[in-house]
Amino acid sequence: MRSVEFLNEVMRRYPDAISFAPGAPHPDTYADLDIERYLSRFVSHAVTESGHPPSTVRRLLYEYGPSRGLINGLVAELLRRDHAVEAPEQAVVVTVGAQEAMLLVLRALIRSTDDLLAVADPCYVGITGAARMLGVETVPVPEADDGLQVQALRSACRAARRAGRRVRVCYVAPDFSNPGGNRMGKEHRERLLELAEAEDFLVLEDNVYGFTAAPGAELPLLKTLDRNRRVVHLGTFSKVCFPGVRVGYVVADQTVVTADGDSTLLADHLARLKTMVTVNTPPLSQAVVGGMLLEHGGSLAERCRTRSALYRRNLTLLLDGLDRLTEQGLPPGVGWNRPTGGFFVRMRLPVPADDTLLARSADSYGVLWTPMAHFHLGPGGADVLRLSCSYLTPEQITTGVRRLGAFLHGEMGR
Amino acid sequence: MRSVEFLNEVMRRYPDAISFAPGAPHPDTYADLDIERYLSRFVSHAVTESGHPPSTVRRLLYEYGPSRGLINGLVAELLRRDHAVEAPEQAVVVTVGAQEAMLLVLRALIRSTDDLLAVADPCYVGITGAARMLGVETVPVPEADDGLQVQALRSACRAARRAGRRVRVCYVAPDFSNPGGNRMGKEHRERLLELAEAEDFLVLEDNVYGFTAAPGAELPLLKTLDRNRRVVHLGTFSKVCFPGVRVGYVVADQTVVTADGDSTLLADHLARLKTMVTVNTPPLSQAVVGGMLLEHGGSLAERCRTRSALYRRNLTLLLDGLDRLTEQGLPPGVGWNRPTGGFFVRMRLPVPADDTLLARSADSYGVLWTPMAHFHLGPGGADVLRLSCSYLTPEQITTGVRRLGAFLHGEMGR
Repeated sequence: MRSVEFLNEVMRRYPDAISFAPGAPHPDTYADLDIERYLSRFVSHAVTESGHPPSTVRRLLYEYGPSRGLINGLVAELLRRDHAVEAPEQAVVVTVGAQEAMLLVLRALIRSTDDLLAVADPCYVGITGAARMLGVETVPVPEADDGLQVQALRSACRAARRAGRRVRVCYVAPDFSNPGGNRMGKEHRERLLELAEAEDFLVLEDNVYGFTAAPGAELPLLKTLDRNRRVVHLGTFSKVCFPGVRVGYVVADQTVVTADGDSTLLADHLARLKTMVTVNTPPLSQAVVGGMLLEHGGSLAERCRTRSALYRRNLTLLLDGLDRLTEQGLPPGVGWNRPTGGFFVRMRLPVPADDTLLARSADSYGVLWTPMAHFHLGPGGADVLRLSCSYLTPEQITTGVRRLGAFLHGEMGR
Repeated sequence: MRSVEFLNEVMRRYPDAISFAPGAPHPDTYADLDIERYLSRFVSHAVTESGHPPSTVRRLLYEYGPSRGLINGLVAELLRRDHAVEAPEQAVVVTVGAQEAMLLVLRALIRSTDDLLAVADPCYVGITGAARMLGVETVPVPEADDGLQVQALRSACRAARRAGRRVRVCYVAPDFSNPGGNRMGKEHRERLLELAEAEDFLVLEDNVYGFTAAPGAELPLLKTLDRNRRVVHLGTFSKVCFPGVRVGYVVADQTVVTADGDSTLLADHLARLKTMVTVNTPPLSQAVVGGMLLEHGGSLAERCRTRSALYRRNLTLLLDGLDRLTEQGLPPGVGWNRPTGGFFVRMRLPVPADDTLLARSADSYGVLWTPMAHFHLGPGGADVLRLSCSYLTPEQITTGVRRLGAFLHGEMGR
């Protein structure tokens, strides 16, 4: 948390710097948004479905509504159409972004201090933050270019068991993870699910960046491959609708035993816990998303394609720019990964990529990035930085890469 | 939680019963809502304030936005105008309903298992639920017609101290509490604040029903009387805008020390914690509330007055109806309180007001209510039920009272 504040402070102090720091969606992806149209589309649909007059149906937008959500059927259909996930509507809970879903899932599944959350290391701060909020202990598992290291996870499970504890949940974003930009192959995904079965844990899959894959290069979701209800699946509309809509969802088709000793569908348990966090997801936001889903005939494949093209354009610009820096000669020890999707590239330096270096990068070169150490649970990532290109224009990326080149030469070439 | 499900199940099974169970706002209070007008009002205001074109300003509605909120200045102005609370904008955090604020405040203030949350008993399930979610231990303090019993709270503080622990926060709804319908007088409020100072705890004030007081009978908020920053104040727009808007707020002008050892404004700490719960409150919902505040010139006094009149009409109908039952003769041992505002009346019976009796009330008399025991932390309230009249029409109240009469005679008159 303190490092995020430091970063915000740096961004405030250098308003003219090009920032490869924020991982926010690109404003062009929601420039043509027509909220009123989506709302009326949703209301007309509900009128047809229910047989009630529009005035009655509009009340749906104003009342508390069910804690589990209003658009669960549409979400279940989306998952069926776009991802071949066969989840009943009853297994879906609509949440205030994927963030609330993370908090609910951790609270529902981890009730004893003997239960552990395994996370990819480096890791998205949303899940480690939710764990800290609830006092849930995390076990870092290294992530490489091909994603979470299954062998290391197996060792973590066994070490936990020897200590009389257990890994209860493993959080992973298999497609273009934040911050690492890593991706698990299909076979690798299968191995993770086999391990979940063998070591008896649940996989919490975060599908935030899957839509950025190139057409034809999509991989099946862990939830699509899930044959034994080992996967709890998280999704969000922040990237394909707009970030401020704050609508996410969780697919939780597992049967769990609650603290009361009752056997219940995990989704039902999450909906009950949600009454203690936000009561319900704003119906207005759900109706906007619902209207968007209806406008697109229940599938977001086409909408995702245009957005994916924009993000891959930015990623290609960044990687091509970095390649040109290489052609011009770069100091030894500088390198980066080459993700084929997502918002992020990680770059290794021959020196510590710390807050001091970031301040110098901002001050002398006008370019910002995020120290990767911020995302590590352990001591890793000290000489790595994260570059995000999702929010920038092509011109900003070009200028930013030039400044990065000057920074690398100026600070590492001596 | 299980009792709420039981109640929902009973309501599903008896769709023709008159239900004095749900404490939801009356649909008439949001029948004339014009969301589009509020949204454009907010956008025009932001255009004037910022000097940016409308297209740029509308983006505010789509982006993540600041975790602490977008309309904090308008909320601070509302508190100044309507309640003479002088809170700087920086001390306000906008939340997804008052429920999220409860969770954040408990997490921020209670970090050790030695710290306790004192609550009025019987108590609103939102705060006890949030405490359970976070593993925060609660101490029940009896509430009577004149509100939370300060003498009993003093004893609870001292008992905690003798056990090497402390009451860190005391939750209270001073105006027409849910479920008790109790109200603290002004002098009583002053004594609570003196105790907070003497015993060194913070008061978490929930102002959800204050607006239902009769004109001229309003009492100062605890926050208005607060001279030593002892009060953290919670508010909601669910009742004066519409429930599904899911916008609440917290005023937290205290300085606290975080787990990291930093000294910070409590509001800043809450905003950081919020990034782990919902990231931010949907800007669309905030803009609707912001537009409503602007339409009313920054004060909700007038809007509250019309809503207050509706709720007091219902309350008077219920109490007058009960009085008529008395005139016709009621079984001995039946009695109720006479709140002058709020949504709730509590009724004492000469027999246990339990789930079995509720099922009989639904089945044989077509009238539903809530067993008060559901709201007690300890064994209290076994022979008390809660009647809520907020959601009903005058006709439903009249019919419901008649059925209540039959129920009381039929079940208690034998």
